Amino acid sequence: MKPSVIDRLAAHAGTYAAAYRASAMPGTPRLSVAVVVCMDTRLSPYGILGLREGDAHVIRNAGGLVTSDIIRSLAASQHLLGTRSVMIVQHTRCGLMNTTDEEFRERLRAHAGADPDFDLGAFADLEASVRRAVELVCESPFLVHRHDVRGFAFDVETGELREVG
Amino acid sequence: MKPSVIDRLAAHAGTYAAAYRASAMPGTPRLSVAVVVCMDTRLSPYGILGLREGDAHVIRNAGGLVTSDIIRSLAASQHLLGTRSVMIVQHTRCGLMNTTDEEFRERLRAHAGADPDFDLGAFADLEASVRRAVELVCESPFLVHRHDVRGFAFDVETGELREVG
Repeated sequence: MKPSVIDRLAAHAGTYAAAYRASAMPGTPRLSVAVVVCMDTRLSPYGILGLREGDAHVIRNAGGLVTSDIIRSLAASQHLLGTRSVMIVQHTRCGLMNTTDEEFRERLRAHAGADPDFDLGAFADLEASVRRAVELVCESPFLVHRHDVRGFAFDVETGELREVG
Repeated sequence: MKPSVIDRLAAHAGTYAAAYRASAMPGTPRLSVAVVVCMDTRLSPYGILGLREGDAHVIRNAGGLVTSDIIRSLAASQHLLGTRSVMIVQHTRCGLMNTTDEEFRERLRAHAGADPDFDLGAFADLEASVRRAVELVCESPFLVHRHDVRGFAFDVETGELREVG
């Protein structure tokens, strides 16, 4: 039988382990930064930002939206593991720009026969979405460090990263 | 003034853009897989699994826990962008194993003067946590594909990845 995709990914891990040096891997991020990035397949925060293992916390969900779960993750990052900066990266042509919360809810309802307890978080205006994400981090009383929180838009057609001020 | 860490990361993006080829970047993941991985700084799913841009959706939070936001992201991944497999990777020495939900809640309450609307999701048993994450994906009626969902534990001391059956 042909190996499944998960079998192939797991098999790669053996090669990785052979070259792995635990001593080079601090448990707390060297750069004291957490990056929040859309899960999109075209975005690698390692490639775009030049991150290496040990540098940063990497938090990703659909959209790079700042949900309650992202605040949980950032709270753990800052309170338990000492990060002080937050960098948010959303991008052009995001899947969340192609539909609406209402359409997505109807699709999930039709599939599951029940209403989801979440909204997709669809958005039409990328810059507004990035600004909103920055605001939500800055407004959370549960975070320790909110002075260095910046938002960016990655252009999936040119590969360029632009700060949203 | 010395450039901040976010300035340095954003500056790297210029180098990346110069070599970027949009044509090599499908919007839907080539391998039709979504990986859910802890945000930990020592874990790079690109390194461990050999992923490249265009291969997979990469979803990450504190712990690699399957929260409502992860189900939202997986629902977007499957309904909107056609992924069919889910691979979950948690790891040894996770920050969520060093404290309890009660301790963390007390810490946030002391900092913010208010109760958070989330729990940390602390856990003591890594294998049980991976199994629970797999179960939560398999139990969600909002996902389309739940037949190929597998959980793994990454050992941050050896670099080895082990399936949790």
